[in-house]
Amino acid sequence: MEDVAVIGASMTRFGQREGWIRDLLAEAGRECLDDAGVAGDAVEHLYVSNMASGEFEGQTGVPNALAHDLGALPAYTARIDQTSSSGGAGIYAAWQSVASGASDLTMLVGGEKMTHRTTAEATDVIASLTHPCEYKHGVTLPSFAGLTARLYLDAYDAPRESLGKVAVKNHRNGVDNPHAQFREEVDLETVLNSPVVADPLRLYDFCPITDGSAALAFCPRSDAEEYADEYVEVAGVAGATDTHVVHERADPTTMRGVVESSDRAYGMAGLSPDDVDVAELHDMFSILEFLQFEDLGFAEKGEGWRAVEAGRTDRDGELPVNTSGGLKSKGHPLGASGVAQAYEIYRQLVGDAGDRQVNADVGLACNVGGFGNCVTTTIFEGVEA
Amino acid sequence: MEDVAVIGASMTRFGQREGWIRDLLAEAGRECLDDAGVAGDAVEHLYVSNMASGEFEGQTGVPNALAHDLGALPAYTARIDQTSSSGGAGIYAAWQSVASGASDLTMLVGGEKMTHRTTAEATDVIASLTHPCEYKHGVTLPSFAGLTARLYLDAYDAPRESLGKVAVKNHRNGVDNPHAQFREEVDLETVLNSPVVADPLRLYDFCPITDGSAALAFCPRSDAEEYADEYVEVAGVAGATDTHVVHERADPTTMRGVVESSDRAYGMAGLSPDDVDVAELHDMFSILEFLQFEDLGFAEKGEGWRAVEAGRTDRDGELPVNTSGGLKSKGHPLGASGVAQAYEIYRQLVGDAGDRQVNADVGLACNVGGFGNCVTTTIFEGVEA
Repeated sequence: MEDVAVIGASMTRFGQREGWIRDLLAEAGRECLDDAGVAGDAVEHLYVSNMASGEFEGQTGVPNALAHDLGALPAYTARIDQTSSSGGAGIYAAWQSVASGASDLTMLVGGEKMTHRTTAEATDVIASLTHPCEYKHGVTLPSFAGLTARLYLDAYDAPRESLGKVAVKNHRNGVDNPHAQFREEVDLETVLNSPVVADPLRLYDFCPITDGSAALAFCPRSDAEEYADEYVEVAGVAGATDTHVVHERADPTTMRGVVESSDRAYGMAGLSPDDVDVAELHDMFSILEFLQFEDLGFAEKGEGWRAVEAGRTDRDGELPVNTSGGLKSKGHPLGASGVAQAYEIYRQLVGDAGDRQVNADVGLACNVGGFGNCVTTTIFEGVEA
Repeated sequence: MEDVAVIGASMTRFGQREGWIRDLLAEAGRECLDDAGVAGDAVEHLYVSNMASGEFEGQTGVPNALAHDLGALPAYTARIDQTSSSGGAGIYAAWQSVASGASDLTMLVGGEKMTHRTTAEATDVIASLTHPCEYKHGVTLPSFAGLTARLYLDAYDAPRESLGKVAVKNHRNGVDNPHAQFREEVDLETVLNSPVVADPLRLYDFCPITDGSAALAFCPRSDAEEYADEYVEVAGVAGATDTHVVHERADPTTMRGVVESSDRAYGMAGLSPDDVDVAELHDMFSILEFLQFEDLGFAEKGEGWRAVEAGRTDRDGELPVNTSGGLKSKGHPLGASGVAQAYEIYRQLVGDAGDRQVNADVGLACNVGGFGNCVTTTIFEGVEA
């Protein structure tokens, strides 16, 4: 098995964007080629992480179009879909392509163009990932978030305010991210008084509907120094599933996919949760940041909320979480999100994160599909040539 | 890099089927587990080749549902889409997962449930893979087939009848395939007098709209004898793209994706076209069987039609092509087709193809997406423990 390096990364501005998904993917792809210092025709495998360009825009065959736009013909192309965790699945696919020796230069471009549809239509596309027995009863992802938040707050004596503080922290981080959809601080009172969406969760507990794209370039670690003096190694990567039907879970406050995928990723990396210096978690809903924080081993079960309360996950805390602003303020273009998480970790580890920079050698990204239905965890280590 | 073996294969009956895509995938998946002699919870990676379950049925997140149905939790899952060549792309993904060491047991299940929609709606979903500049002018895949057939017949002095003989041959083979959608012979006169679809091509030059699923199980070759006495090795596999816009091609009668992907697959396998004993080609349109036959190196450019005329590709010819009946008679459930091609090659190489059996040690499958926009070629070798 070849060790695998990331030698370039990019992301577009997230938000409401003009054009088609092709435009967004090409924008991120070209910038990533520039960042890695490679020409399009050097790309051997080109993966597109995307959930639903057909449903959102009536456009399929997008990887092939992107190969054209990047001048990458005759590169092998494919689309990787794993709903909201398509980006993480794309990272795993890209890693496998290089680790297996199939490709010496793989580019991954994740993206989604969601605002072609109304918010109601877009959320209906997302809801199509649930089991029909859930969907038909109106139990969609936001409802699961509300139900789980209630369960968590009750079980672990956590105050409602602790959830609000996730949004406050991530919005504060997003102010310094030029690519973020929202670059405005919010105060706790605003969060706690925003409209109820799924009790006890309110508007500011949820990520927005977003257009955007992000990209990464991968090569064998043994080639990485040809491209860059500072780069990042994929130290560990794995994916896992949980039940498709959420009510079959013994304890919905534990995300089995997070536990299983991170166990394997830590094992592959030879690292433990204590070694992680910075993390991007999938805060599609505020409650998910607590669950992942615990299931990744950063806190005991039921103690995740205390880390946020104590400021441990702030940018100047002992384990900064979502320095990018997270899905909450950066936005959540489904197929792009896992790739954009890795973009943030990459920038942090090569010391190029601008005002968001923290001191970090090891970073972790956890990308969640559905309500934890499928999860990928990736651990990155910075390398200086 | 680990050598990779296929240790089990299955396919459902193709045709108009009841139920949802989940039902079809689970049917093929369970049968493949039985064929390989493995339990669902032994599966480490589970890939679903599928183009458009969201567009056809309003259902996404299908790999996660399948993991549940096969008892495969917490296996890593993802959907692989490369339009009509999603099955071949799934084979390449499954190969990479084992070759990289990420998985010691990978199951690939390809499927599509197309008849939820009318034929007009289904063909519109397929047409969404073309460039908007083509689609808006009504130039869809069947039109490209007609235009290319005309070009080919003119350029190489091929008689119209030779195209019809592809349909006659493949229907004849399909009679002996219990999984085929159409199990009836057709005579040349019927083909040549069927309604015009895209001149000079007629109804019998086209594959049908189909529901169906097929599955394969992969493991490291070093483990294969734990599962089976006779199995198949993936000797070579590669994918490549051609232009997204067909009119940018210097010569539309050459499919660059076929040339490039097969060159690499032959190189990886250390084999040449002369070594191939049986082949499944992507006869979505009759003309494509000629083009692939040539671009895979089985005949000189412009000579492919002569092979069919001379009976070289018949079941008792020197290189039997589409012993399964091909897409033409077996049917073409988009995401399933590439997997079903490999199913046929697998059955031929382990000597379990029933009335369709030919004498073969090496088999090749060529799976084409779009109008050659993206192609995977896989070469299999039979192994006896």
